[in-house]
Amino acid sequence: MERLPILKIGPMLLVSIQVDLRDDMVIALQEDLADRIVDTGARGVVIDITALDIVDSFTGRMLATIAALSRVLDAETVVVGMRPAVAITLVELGLSLDGIKTALDVERGMRLLSSAGGVGR
Amino acid sequence: MERLPILKIGPMLLVSIQVDLRDDMVIALQEDLADRIVDTGARGVVIDITALDIVDSFTGRMLATIAALSRVLDAETVVVGMRPAVAITLVELGLSLDGIKTALDVERGMRLLSSAGGVGR
Repeated sequence: MERLPILKIGPMLLVSIQVDLRDDMVIALQEDLADRIVDTGARGVVIDITALDIVDSFTGRMLATIAALSRVLDAETVVVGMRPAVAITLVELGLSLDGIKTALDVERGMRLLSSAGGVGR
Repeated sequence: MERLPILKIGPMLLVSIQVDLRDDMVIALQEDLADRIVDTGARGVVIDITALDIVDSFTGRMLATIAALSRVLDAETVVVGMRPAVAITLVELGLSLDGIKTALDVERGMRLLSSAGGVGR
């Protein structure tokens, strides 16, 4: 089974989503991410969706679940790299990603986590 | 056409390869990367291949070309996340990735770039 790589960069974990995720991949990602947060003591998770042209309600729910999971494990989630068209679709779908922080790119996402959660480099 | 996201993190660019690349995607990646190196003045490029189960001679040549391209633009390349099986295959193929730096994970790769090329954070 394909698994998404989770990269540790400083006190944060980075997941770059480049492929359309199937159910089993989402479940694997959530398990892997929970393990890595606990193993590394990461305080922040950056999810990069630059490569996604389309975000449907399935992806929206996945992002919400990852954010909730991270929160329980004392890590914050920032979604970065959202395209304008994706943002429009999300809002049209009624998925406003409540409770999920967003930033334009990885660097801003990392700065946001640093400033918000005391996640120093 | 699908394009691989190139993430800027500090003075480095990060490309995480998660899909089997076709010819046109490789060409697009090389063009995008050259543009981003020039635009951002990045001094290092980290190529993450954690997700690749198989590296064939096509991928090996691509890595070599990216490294050569970066070098011409005054940036160093580090390939990170190589699996043991991939390393064995590469050597069996006679592709020893001469002139390409490698590191076990993104953090070590970034440290390697920092220490080698004066790429400070």
